[in-house]
Amino acid sequence: MTTLRLAELNAAYAAAIDQDRLEAWPDFFTDDCLYKITSADNEKAGMQAGIVYADSRAMLRDRITALRTANIYERQAYRHIVGLPLIVREADGLIAAETPFLVVRITRDARTDLFATGLYRDQVVPADGGLRFRQRIVVCDSNHFDTLVAIPL
Amino acid sequence: MTTLRLAELNAAYAAAIDQDRLEAWPDFFTDDCLYKITSADNEKAGMQAGIVYADSRAMLRDRITALRTANIYERQAYRHIVGLPLIVREADGLIAAETPFLVVRITRDARTDLFATGLYRDQVVPADGGLRFRQRIVVCDSNHFDTLVAIPL
Amino acid sequence: MTTLRLAELNAAYAAAIDQDRLEAWPDFFTDDCLYKITSADNEKAGMQAGIVYADSRAMLRDRITALRTANIYERQAYRHIVGLPLIVREADGLIAAETPFLVVRITRDARTDLFATGLYRDQVVPADGGLRFRQRIVVCDSNHFDTLVAIPL
Repeated sequence: MTTLRLAELNAAYAAAIDQDRLEAWPDFFTDDCLYKITSADNEKAGMQAGIVYADSRAMLRDRITALRTANIYERQAYRHIVGLPLIVREADGLIAAETPFLVVRITRDARTDLFATGLYRDQVVPADGGLRFRQRIVVCDSNHFDTLVAIPL
Repeated sequence: MTTLRLAELNAAYAAAIDQDRLEAWPDFFTDDCLYKITSADNEKAGMQAGIVYADSRAMLRDRITALRTANIYERQAYRHIVGLPLIVREADGLIAAETPFLVVRITRDARTDLFATGLYRDQVVPADGGLRFRQRIVVCDSNHFDTLVAIPL
Repeated sequence: MTTLRLAELNAAYAAAIDQDRLEAWPDFFTDDCLYKITSADNEKAGMQAGIVYADSRAMLRDRITALRTANIYERQAYRHIVGLPLIVREADGLIAAETPFLVVRITRDARTDLFATGLYRDQVVPADGGLRFRQRIVVCDSNHFDTLVAIPL
């Protein structure tokens, strides 16, 4: 069932990030893809750029390499709680879905705070014997999260 | 599978609210229905009234019309994270289920806070080719949320 | 489908705790079992003990009896929001899974706060006509939650 398969994809995606297996993160995308972090207000204002932008798996890999080198990300960890995907359209092997998420941040001094909430706007296709994101636009509800979004959302 | 169908119903319900398609919200209910927001303490004390009360889809529609006119709600948005439904009883086409929820509020100055948590006590029936709520009692864990619950929970 | 059955098990487990049916909580485990609450940092440091530790259902029952006698727990309630399980391994009737969770605490003065987030590391087996935990290790993301974890997580 599509909903369940998408939910499993999301569970695996979140686990890779939250358990610091960031090198596995680009594998959730197709070679040509769109990954973008933006906010609801930016979307309404028609701003295309996003806070983070990548249009290929290679760019996603570069991003992780940079993170590992900079080592900034080690000071914090995330915990994703991902809601059930709502399937918006399903045709010709392409699934368009919207999935709510909540991310808690755990800083190294062990404070826990509500870091971000929002909606994943996804286009998912079959690839490599599973499902991959051809598009994942991360629409954050607030503009006010740290401008330094080090770890992928 | 019933659990999954209920989860999909909840996902669609939450999406309608969080994405400001409030006019679609009454359509998740049957014509005769019970929608109530209350708290765990109120329930224990035997108080029937609730903070919000409606017993027909027409009343739910009126509520949305009032909201749109008052325009109060525009200052904030919600993000629902809904847990998996627990089926309490299933007989004669009626499903009784209990589903935990968490609602984050995003105010227009972009603060994000934990607004409410609680349990949906639902009675769900087949209608209009899908599933509809004949009853949704929103039991909030705390009494202490804003007395002005503008947007539906 | 295994993912969905595990999700239902988790929903029932969380409901027993959140709705104060704590006497039912040990029944989610096999007679011989491992239940432990620890933190990600403790795990990395190789500390085995955990903050809470029990290796039989009898010990879990004792824990609940102690709680009911002490009555400390009545001052607060929990609300679990549990993510979708990620199946790590499934063989010979044993399912190993990892499931993210978030727990909100509601204190008696009605404050709501983000109490704990983390990962359940589970070993689940068929028993008593359903599924039971042979192991549930509760790995909290932060060390900083109350040292008095009265209610089970």
